[in-house]
Amino acid sequence: MQIRDPAELTAIVNVGDDVELHGLHISPDLDTITYTVAGAIDPERGWGLAGETWHAMEALARFPLARSWFNLGDRDLATHLYRTDRLRAGATLSEVTAEIAAAWGLGCHLLPVSDDTVRTMVTVPDDGEIGFQEYFVQRHHDVTVTAVRFDGADTARPGPTVLRSLADAERVVIAPSNPIVSIDPVLAVPGVREAVEARRADVVAVSPIIAGAALKGPADRLLRELGHESSVVGIARIYAPIAATLVIDEADADKAGKVEAEGVRCVVAPTIMRSPAEAAALGQIVLGQ
Amino acid sequence: MQIRDPAELTAIVNVGDDVELHGLHISPDLDTITYTVAGAIDPERGWGLAGETWHAMEALARFPLARSWFNLGDRDLATHLYRTDRLRAGATLSEVTAEIAAAWGLGCHLLPVSDDTVRTMVTVPDDGEIGFQEYFVQRHHDVTVTAVRFDGADTARPGPTVLRSLADAERVVIAPSNPIVSIDPVLAVPGVREAVEARRADVVAVSPIIAGAALKGPADRLLRELGHESSVVGIARIYAPIAATLVIDEADADKAGKVEAEGVRCVVAPTIMRSPAEAAALGQIVLGQ
Repeated sequence: MQIRDPAELTAIVNVGDDVELHGLHISPDLDTITYTVAGAIDPERGWGLAGETWHAMEALARFPLARSWFNLGDRDLATHLYRTDRLRAGATLSEVTAEIAAAWGLGCHLLPVSDDTVRTMVTVPDDGEIGFQEYFVQRHHDVTVTAVRFDGADTARPGPTVLRSLADAERVVIAPSNPIVSIDPVLAVPGVREAVEARRADVVAVSPIIAGAALKGPADRLLRELGHESSVVGIARIYAPIAATLVIDEADADKAGKVEAEGVRCVVAPTIMRSPAEAAALGQIVLGQ
Repeated sequence: MQIRDPAELTAIVNVGDDVELHGLHISPDLDTITYTVAGAIDPERGWGLAGETWHAMEALARFPLARSWFNLGDRDLATHLYRTDRLRAGATLSEVTAEIAAAWGLGCHLLPVSDDTVRTMVTVPDDGEIGFQEYFVQRHHDVTVTAVRFDGADTARPGPTVLRSLADAERVVIAPSNPIVSIDPVLAVPGVREAVEARRADVVAVSPIIAGAALKGPADRLLRELGHESSVVGIARIYAPIAATLVIDEADADKAGKVEAEGVRCVVAPTIMRSPAEAAALGQIVLGQ
């Protein structure tokens, strides 16, 4: 299988990371994908725009009570201003997301998993339950997590074309993202897990854990803190009900047998994506399954 | 009379120009005064910050449906982000305004005339009733106005210290601002006109009309379109019920008699403020009455 036209590619994206700050609706996961596919992302930071300026943030620091822990670049702000304005005017998040993707010239489809509000809430010892960005950005995910909850997920509806996309896809890929706070809030929207399950034979997951650790972010720590095993075997255990195939990194080749014992077919491949070329190569492997 | 300490000066400011754009609460009159008193205003434009950058606005232009007609500089954006965040957190506009003024090191007091929503609405031939900024900025106030209304004014309450400030002031000054869309929305908040009237003997107004014309903005045109006379005599007629004294420019010295015939004492003085020094000189004249 090969993607000949970007329009054949649809990304169903987590909105549990979304946050309202300064009155703006910020969708970090949607924006990171948009900027990445557009080739506009800052490659060092891995978020926000390359060549960004920070004049608004610097000016915000003048105000002692400002919530300035969430960095918003000047050009990135335009995305949030636009999204917020359109949402206030009655557009859905799906509609605005499509507009933003078109404006950036993305050929692929970007679907927020839901147009309803889903918020990843994280329980930490000292502060109780806090929002995801308060955990991830404000506390640099440097605290123990005792629980994760997806506020609003119970009553959220999948975006208008989410279930159809899953049903019609030739291949469904679970990206090497954080299973607890990035993939699970997608699956938590009623109907989505079932729709993925229904395609299990065509679902390929890529392990975010390599040699027991996450390349970046707190996936390894979160897995351990919430009772999972931070290994490709632990990942296999989590995804076995919804994915027939798990791609693990070459560094974990010796665990292929244990992965398959969890009930998934195991594919060993180079999974570290340091460049678009390496990402494309992994994409070919995933589609080739 | 002289102001020895900036803390002796209180400005009661119009909020009818305020606008919600992109989810942000923008208070152009409050900000223009803040930036002006702070010495940070762009002297050419007369609004916004000197040395400003426009990266967010430039990036907003990428989106075809963006409401990009209202220019927001990158550093200016910080003020709106902060104000909006604090309002969402439950602070009143008076409180946020005091915080912003303190952060900019203003010594004087800035009071929004009301913490409630008052919106100046303007009726224009083709579009019916539109918001003030849609008239002023989007249409460059280059349309005929058939009516002006202050939405919300009926039920708005004066800010917590507005009436006391008017009662306690040694002198009340009506700045040479647009009487129809800048001064009237202040007076329209129930209790404010009465509070000014009660101090009539100590109220000094400065005419915004010089030789029949406004120095900038549409005051002259609006006066004519709404049935007033665009002259110092027309201004005297408008302010006579609430101001004992009207300061007119030297260019209108020949109309002093007609002004006094309207029932106000007339003071002739240089009223064009091209520099802080000229503004200070006019301030001394006004306080000296």
